[in-house]
Amino acid sequence: MSQTAVAPKAARGPLNGVDTPNLFATIDVVRNNPPLAKFQFRATNTWVSGTYGRGTIETFSGAGSEHVHARTFVLEADHPAVLVGEDRAPLPVEYMLYGLAACITGGIANIAAARGVQLSEVEATVEGDMDLRGILGLSNEVRNGYQAIRASFRIKGDAPEEKLRQIVEQARARSAVYDILTNAVPVSIGITVG
Amino acid sequence: MSQTAVAPKAARGPLNGVDTPNLFATIDVVRNNPPLAKFQFRATNTWVSGTYGRGTIETFSGAGSEHVHARTFVLEADHPAVLVGEDRAPLPVEYMLYGLAACITGGIANIAAARGVQLSEVEATVEGDMDLRGILGLSNEVRNGYQAIRASFRIKGDAPEEKLRQIVEQARARSAVYDILTNAVPVSIGITVG
Repeated sequence: MSQTAVAPKAARGPLNGVDTPNLFATIDVVRNNPPLAKFQFRATNTWVSGTYGRGTIETFSGAGSEHVHARTFVLEADHPAVLVGEDRAPLPVEYMLYGLAACITGGIANIAAARGVQLSEVEATVEGDMDLRGILGLSNEVRNGYQAIRASFRIKGDAPEEKLRQIVEQARARSAVYDILTNAVPVSIGITVG
Repeated sequence: MSQTAVAPKAARGPLNGVDTPNLFATIDVVRNNPPLAKFQFRATNTWVSGTYGRGTIETFSGAGSEHVHARTFVLEADHPAVLVGEDRAPLPVEYMLYGLAACITGGIANIAAARGVQLSEVEATVEGDMDLRGILGLSNEVRNGYQAIRASFRIKGDAPEEKLRQIVEQARARSAVYDILTNAVPVSIGITVG
């Protein structure tokens, strides 16, 4: 058995572009000080015209303090022509699919690194089915959102098939976005006029 | 009472950058042919390094055919340094908040146009609370995703306060993303190795 194989997890070096020692150290810090686990994420959107708007993702809080992202991320959303928009940006519901793809992909990289598996490829494709009679107000039996979402992950790395499958499964089991989609989140809406 | 005020809905001209006649015509077409309401949206993500990946939003189906967006939208996601990433792009969970902001904002513009209300400003801010002990695997009592989301909308337009509030309320009631977040969506995960 090689030296690497018997080394404790915490002694593993960076892998897959993941700073694995820092990842393990972060988990230990939070284990010993649970209030550091409390995070708040934020996004804005400013209406421009029609269904088109532009917003920013700039700050968040967590690990006991306020943070500013390395740069201000600008996002835009619109509807395509067939939905009476000008197709200047993705649909809001497409962002929901991308969030799932990205959350599980990032989790796969972290978990593979933690398990000493070098990845060579991860590809995610996600599709969601929607019946627009909901949002168009044509049916009260049809829900507004996705009726079903299917995500597919193709993974390649230096581990047996079963181990690679388990990495994807663990990424799903610990995915924030998978939980957000498959379990209800309480959402409150505030309105200010003027 | 002005001519505009007594005109039937369908005779209303474009407003707020919304092609209102086209919007009403689209709703009528779907009302008369419900299978046209079936849409499928799609997103991909390709792992690059660490928690960083890049994907595209390019095609969708609906209204009885396949569609290609006006251009290929490229999205990226990453984790910030405090979460052991390099902060090259928004977090996947931040996309979920932006999707909610954008979905309700677009709905407000459409509904205001349908009701003959000229908007001058709509601003959305959304925040979500997360306890990272879930995704870090430190607690089985703490959920992985958001524990709560709060969205605030500031709206200005040429209508009484109560009418503006009702527009936001109707946008919430018919929001695809609000439904996705507040009600469970069935999500299936496929895995291909190699």
